[in-house]
Amino acid sequence: MLKSERSVYELWLEYTRLTLCDIGNTTFDFYKNGAKEKIFVADYELKKSDEKVFYICVNEKIANDLKNFSNWIDLKYFVDMKNYYETMGIDRIMGCEAVQNGVIIDAGSAITVDVVKNGVFQGGYIALGLYTSHEAYLQISPRLDYSYNFEIDLDKMPKNSQDALTYGQLGLLYRDVMSHSLPVYLTGGDASKLKAIFKDAVVDEELLFKGMKNIMKKVDLC
Amino acid sequence: MLKSERSVYELWLEYTRLTLCDIGNTTFDFYKNGAKEKIFVADYELKKSDEKVFYICVNEKIANDLKNFSNWIDLKYFVDMKNYYETMGIDRIMGCEAVQNGVIIDAGSAITVDVVKNGVFQGGYIALGLYTSHEAYLQISPRLDYSYNFEIDLDKMPKNSQDALTYGQLGLLYRDVMSHSLPVYLTGGDASKLKAIFKDAVVDEELLFKGMKNIMKKVDLC
Repeated sequence: MLKSERSVYELWLEYTRLTLCDIGNTTFDFYKNGAKEKIFVADYELKKSDEKVFYICVNEKIANDLKNFSNWIDLKYFVDMKNYYETMGIDRIMGCEAVQNGVIIDAGSAITVDVVKNGVFQGGYIALGLYTSHEAYLQISPRLDYSYNFEIDLDKMPKNSQDALTYGQLGLLYRDVMSHSLPVYLTGGDASKLKAIFKDAVVDEELLFKGMKNIMKKVDLC
Repeated sequence: MLKSERSVYELWLEYTRLTLCDIGNTTFDFYKNGAKEKIFVADYELKKSDEKVFYICVNEKIANDLKNFSNWIDLKYFVDMKNYYETMGIDRIMGCEAVQNGVIIDAGSAITVDVVKNGVFQGGYIALGLYTSHEAYLQISPRLDYSYNFEIDLDKMPKNSQDALTYGQLGLLYRDVMSHSLPVYLTGGDASKLKAIFKDAVVDEELLFKGMKNIMKKVDLC
């Protein structure tokens, strides 16, 4: 998208007051008029309204509830699935729709990694998130209770315990991601932590919303 | 070690009836006269005896108990530590002592990976074991309840959920290990499973005992 195009589009979004929402297992992440708002699932009450909300949702219970609200529009039905696969998370798909060429890393409880070339999804994988893998090391032995070293030199093989654990998760991830020789985009709750490892990456907390907007433009929803 | 040397050495071991033992968190793994025996920690009673047992131990409680038994000889005191680091597991060190050039993968509750060149430890790391990482995926979401696909084609980026999880653990490991262009040695409880991924690897269930024997030879303990 050209910058000039984008600003017109942003203005249009503002004018129409479209609301986007990325619904996860724990939060509703709203995006409206360029501002974001996070509301915990437990704190949010669905009410009848005329305001249109375009959403993606990985939370099955909420997805079911939302079927009763005609102003909530599920964007998954507007995705051209021929490049993706059926069980692929809709959040991963939106990340891919936001980028023409790149590796998209969405770092939350899982770390998803997806490769897009010339706007086409090439494949991707799911590693464990920072918190989840740290907890898993602890399950093995209390002797593996090390926080990750985000200042690790990943060009050297580790010779201390903290680096050995860091490399066993983040080093392996880094080496694979960099092997694609593509721009790296970081999003999700741990994006800024991973930026210390992926020094040249772009941190973009709105990446999934950009993908949602691109889908809406493709199918003339806006 | 030349084959002829080894058989003389094996004969010597048999003659002297030396017993080796690798003590983990859950089992005593004995090696005597070329035969192995595994006894669960809970089922084994330490008794006074004249029989010498040369051991390594990662179980702190048992290591303490063994101080009262003079016939149990802890091999960690005979390791030249200048190439290793203080908190490195003694089991990893024994794997390294068994090999002149190679990547040693010990696959249990953790998967340790150590690189040795010309008999010198180059560094290594600790990834999560097969069971541990599968359980960690389940902690994230029941939708990630996939068994690993050991027939995965790791030259392609995954386009289905089972392969996405397999690649996120085993694919990243594989790509890093192969980048060293060294022979790969597999040991530990999941060695035979990983052989499906590391097709050219040598599976050696006695690797740690070989390292123990090499240490004993170096310091004239046998």
